Amino acid sequence: MLIGKVVGFVVSTRKSENLVGNKFMIVEPVTAMKQSNRIVAVDKVGAGIGELVLVAEGSAARIGCGEDRSPIDAAIVGIVDEGQNLDLE
Amino acid sequence: MLIGKVVGFVVSTRKSENLVGNKFMIVEPVTAMKQSNRIVAVDKVGAGIGELVLVAEGSAARIGCGEDRSPIDAAIVGIVDEGQNLDLE
Amino acid sequence: MLIGKVVGFVVSTRKSENLVGNKFMIVEPVTAMKQSNRIVAVDKVGAGIGELVLVAEGSAARIGCGEDRSPIDAAIVGIVDEGQNLDLE
Amino acid sequence: MLIGKVVGFVVSTRKSENLVGNKFMIVEPVTAMKQSNRIVAVDKVGAGIGELVLVAEGSAARIGCGEDRSPIDAAIVGIVDEGQNLDLE
Amino acid sequence: MLIGKVVGFVVSTRKSENLVGNKFMIVEPVTAMKQSNRIVAVDKVGAGIGELVLVAEGSAARIGCGEDRSPIDAAIVGIVDEGQNLDLE
Repeated sequence: MLIGKVVGFVVSTRKSENLVGNKFMIVEPVTAMKQSNRIVAVDKVGAGIGELVLVAEGSAARIGCGEDRSPIDAAIVGIVDEGQNLDLE
Repeated sequence: MLIGKVVGFVVSTRKSENLVGNKFMIVEPVTAMKQSNRIVAVDKVGAGIGELVLVAEGSAARIGCGEDRSPIDAAIVGIVDEGQNLDLE
Repeated sequence: MLIGKVVGFVVSTRKSENLVGNKFMIVEPVTAMKQSNRIVAVDKVGAGIGELVLVAEGSAARIGCGEDRSPIDAAIVGIVDEGQNLDLE
Repeated sequence: MLIGKVVGFVVSTRKSENLVGNKFMIVEPVTAMKQSNRIVAVDKVGAGIGELVLVAEGSAARIGCGEDRSPIDAAIVGIVDEGQNLDLE
Repeated sequence: MLIGKVVGFVVSTRKSENLVGNKFMIVEPVTAMKQSNRIVAVDKVGAGIGELVLVAEGSAARIGCGEDRSPIDAAIVGIVDEGQNLDLE
């Protein structure tokens, strides 16, 4: 998983029917993760813009969120409260 | 997932029989994604060249699109209408 | 998926028995893909050195090619005839 | 898998119910791995901060740890005792 | 898959019980692969330090090696004898 900040979202009206009802958030990894590419992740915990979140990728996002037949490869699965030895700017 | 622009497509006559009937679009991630490598994605929503799309990768593309037995590792699963806090140039 | 050129192959006599009968081609992504790392992919369409091919990666290569129990994570699944808006040098 | 050092952890109260009971450690690959991005991995072996660990990623972390239905894409699956020809600083 | 050279190994006494009996080799991709990050791969063919090997990653390593329930995301699945048009230094 990775820790990132929710920096935006996108709206898609014409999409796979298995995606209906999901919110697509843009997550930027925090600097401490040392990776730069942003991710579009489906929100499963009610995250808002500006919040620090935990993102799961790959089949973990799909199966781990009970979305076995949806084209989801990333999901926000937790809100980060605090970190130790980690600069969460 | 990632957001990208459809910049082209490729034609393949001699291919795996499980790929027959699919269109192979070339998708370039938008700058806001902060990743540079392009992806060949199967089109599942009728996307055209120049459109902004949502791409799912990995087993999500295959199983999430009902193509369980096809060698598909990326699929266009949505057309992006708009974004908030995201420069979709 | 990605588009690449077959630039070579490797021979492996001592290997997993589930790999017997496969050819291991070295594929270099074309410049238009904007990614540099080469891939060793199993050939499923009779590709030759110098040909432009479509490569599927991950579980799509294994399951999508009916090799469910083989340690295959990349496969050549199409020969590319032509591309639009894509410099296939 | 990769070898890394546990450099911190994060706390998440509001999270997917399938994640309850897990500890989320921040792992930094050792220099010898020649990769820089840190990973958030669930701890399955009782690793402490500063320890060298073996991390599995992808479906291996989820299924290989008996967490088939959890959104886990990385797990600490071993404590590294020593290495040969490997600078484990 | 990728071609790499076995450059070392690591020992882990305290580990997931599904990993018991495996050897963890450090593999460095050959220059011709044009990727730099090293991988810890389980050895399935009796590879020794200094040998050129074929490595499978992801679920292919786990399921393709009959280790369906083990946290293994990379495996050495072949010894490379020779290559054509490939500098295997």
